[in-house]
Amino acid sequence: MADEDRSSNVTTSRASNPGSQTSLRHRNQRRLTEQLLKGGPATQADLARSTGLSTATVSNIVKSMAAADLVTLTPVTSSGRRAMSVRYNGDGAIAAGIDFGRTHVRVVLANTGYHVVAEKEMPLPMGHRAAEGIAAAADLLEKLMAEATVSRAQLIGAGAGIPGPIDNRNGKVIRGAILPEWVGINLHRELEDALKMPVFVDNDANLGALAQLTWGDQGGVRNLVFVKIGSGIGAGIVLNGELFHGSFGVTGEIGHVTIDEHGTICRCGNRGCLETVSSTAVMVEQLSRGRKVPISTADILSQAAAGDPATLRIIDDAGTAVGRALANVANLISPSVIVIGGPLAELGEVLLSPIRRGLRRHAVPVIGDSITLAVSPLRSRAEALGAAALVFQNDPTTLIS
Amino acid sequence: MADEDRSSNVTTSRASNPGSQTSLRHRNQRRLTEQLLKGGPATQADLARSTGLSTATVSNIVKSMAAADLVTLTPVTSSGRRAMSVRYNGDGAIAAGIDFGRTHVRVVLANTGYHVVAEKEMPLPMGHRAAEGIAAAADLLEKLMAEATVSRAQLIGAGAGIPGPIDNRNGKVIRGAILPEWVGINLHRELEDALKMPVFVDNDANLGALAQLTWGDQGGVRNLVFVKIGSGIGAGIVLNGELFHGSFGVTGEIGHVTIDEHGTICRCGNRGCLETVSSTAVMVEQLSRGRKVPISTADILSQAAAGDPATLRIIDDAGTAVGRALANVANLISPSVIVIGGPLAELGEVLLSPIRRGLRRHAVPVIGDSITLAVSPLRSRAEALGAAALVFQNDPTTLIS
Repeated sequence: MADEDRSSNVTTSRASNPGSQTSLRHRNQRRLTEQLLKGGPATQADLARSTGLSTATVSNIVKSMAAADLVTLTPVTSSGRRAMSVRYNGDGAIAAGIDFGRTHVRVVLANTGYHVVAEKEMPLPMGHRAAEGIAAAADLLEKLMAEATVSRAQLIGAGAGIPGPIDNRNGKVIRGAILPEWVGINLHRELEDALKMPVFVDNDANLGALAQLTWGDQGGVRNLVFVKIGSGIGAGIVLNGELFHGSFGVTGEIGHVTIDEHGTICRCGNRGCLETVSSTAVMVEQLSRGRKVPISTADILSQAAAGDPATLRIIDDAGTAVGRALANVANLISPSVIVIGGPLAELGEVLLSPIRRGLRRHAVPVIGDSITLAVSPLRSRAEALGAAALVFQNDPTTLIS
Repeated sequence: MADEDRSSNVTTSRASNPGSQTSLRHRNQRRLTEQLLKGGPATQADLARSTGLSTATVSNIVKSMAAADLVTLTPVTSSGRRAMSVRYNGDGAIAAGIDFGRTHVRVVLANTGYHVVAEKEMPLPMGHRAAEGIAAAADLLEKLMAEATVSRAQLIGAGAGIPGPIDNRNGKVIRGAILPEWVGINLHRELEDALKMPVFVDNDANLGALAQLTWGDQGGVRNLVFVKIGSGIGAGIVLNGELFHGSFGVTGEIGHVTIDEHGTICRCGNRGCLETVSSTAVMVEQLSRGRKVPISTADILSQAAAGDPATLRIIDDAGTAVGRALANVANLISPSVIVIGGPLAELGEVLLSPIRRGLRRHAVPVIGDSITLAVSPLRSRAEALGAAALVFQNDPTTLIS
């Protein structure tokens, strides 16, 4: 409704007749372009659904846009049927996506057609200060720009994610973050100061969820949950096709669902939270007992591949608990898809199987049966890719002439 | 965006110049009227927020609508400040709201100004068949129409709620309903056949949530959870100002959150669900042990008022468990308000206090601290009132000339 008003105001201030066919076609093309920027490449059927335009209108506009080289068509298979994926070519605008982790920072440069033009990750010391992480990101960004010969003028902004909640009332990283050294800083302001461009920030799990919709194959999904299992556990929630931020930006804190009333004390101050059972930090700790050198998350993957019984048991217990927590999520909001991300996603069915068992055991049957459970095909790149998409999501109209 | 398109099509097909001031004013007045029908009486500030119109525009339109007797203004206090509540007078259109319970049916008749013009409840035998309940509702409706001299022509439709999930892919009441005799019926079709008017159906907790927004004092709230504690326990969820229905209509099933892994078997087939601890059915059962005649839900209220220690303990245990389940909800979607409904809401602080304790104990602190917890001021009328609002919610434009 607000859009209707805005459009009518815009219309009034223009000289051309707003009811004419030309004007209508221009508006429809703009809407389609906005959707391609915001949602990434999509089939014509998905574009019709997400824009509300008829399939005939979408097909006509796509045809003329393709003739003008504004979009590229690529054959894909969608729900088992052959279709054409439409990708916006754009005008050379580039977005940066930054993923801050406990021990790494990754930067990607992506164009409006959702193609990665450059990408790099570098390690950060455990316990690094926010300033160090931000400086490293700025360095990495400069290097990537040089490598891919991207100019300052082409860079329209940067998206960034951290593994911790951000209070959108004041922009601050709040307690509970996996990066305790970052708590209390205003990430948005610090990054804009360092990078000298518009910056958009969000929690890493939210960016993972956004990446599934834009870069992944979940473009048409209306209700989706992305679960990041890492040193912490969090979820990004897509409802009615949009990221959901709750009343002040902090949502999807499934790492703090009580799994064992009398369990271990959690860093949040409660007891027996999901994170005390299923985080990679806890799994590493348990599997390192009696060893001189603690194992790494990568070791969990290799030991599982080698069939180590203790590792498989730890994964099974962790997965079952994640499944139980997801059953609560399912009972509450009934998403059609749940995607598992984070380093353990590489385990594939070894991880999905106990999660599915926990989910089915604890969910209301009709809901549990309706959910598609999968690991993220975007692997460790999901958060940085989602961060780049966040730039295109924020008022894409500024990109369209 | 879809609205923009629709409006532009409508515009094109009209003779008048769509860009003119008169047309713009007409459109804005229509939007305001739609909001008053959909959202119920509201202050001018809330109307500006929900329509996206400026406060000056809202004030101008309201002034001229009041002069034409289209709306009535009533002084209210909103967030501690004096304001005028705007109520749509309408044209005599009436909606029926029907609330089916395990042992009752309640019908209300309401006008477009959200005034109840007639209201009645009658008991139904435990274990009644759906056909009996529907016949009783049809009878009650006829009686109320006669009493309030409402004609068939004035009745624009009926909303109805049942304490059970409805699958919106096929309109059927599904397993898990508190009314097992109703499972499998197509409530929407049966009611339209019996009442001979347009019918809209939803789960009772969803209607309770809708009632808080429309009839209650939560009109401006964007994210709200309404929890109905009765023979079953369910939640209605409002996200971004709209009822949320998930992927196929079944959401808010918090009655089946696992509270005790090794607890009692639940009617859903799982074990130790919230309903096995906190439903009125379980409380009645526990408090009836050793008595010749089982107590009623009403007895729980009177025994609590008399300070009976066993009753207070049962309420405390039930409330704490509800609070723990709500902490999961809070961690996930961070609503700003949680409203408790159902017969136990009469207990007020006696019930809210353990719920608050459970919520605070298990929620991520920054989220738990941000939530307002309250009992529904609409008491046992919430579901029927929400059902009437459902009629006005469904394409209110048909009501506006």
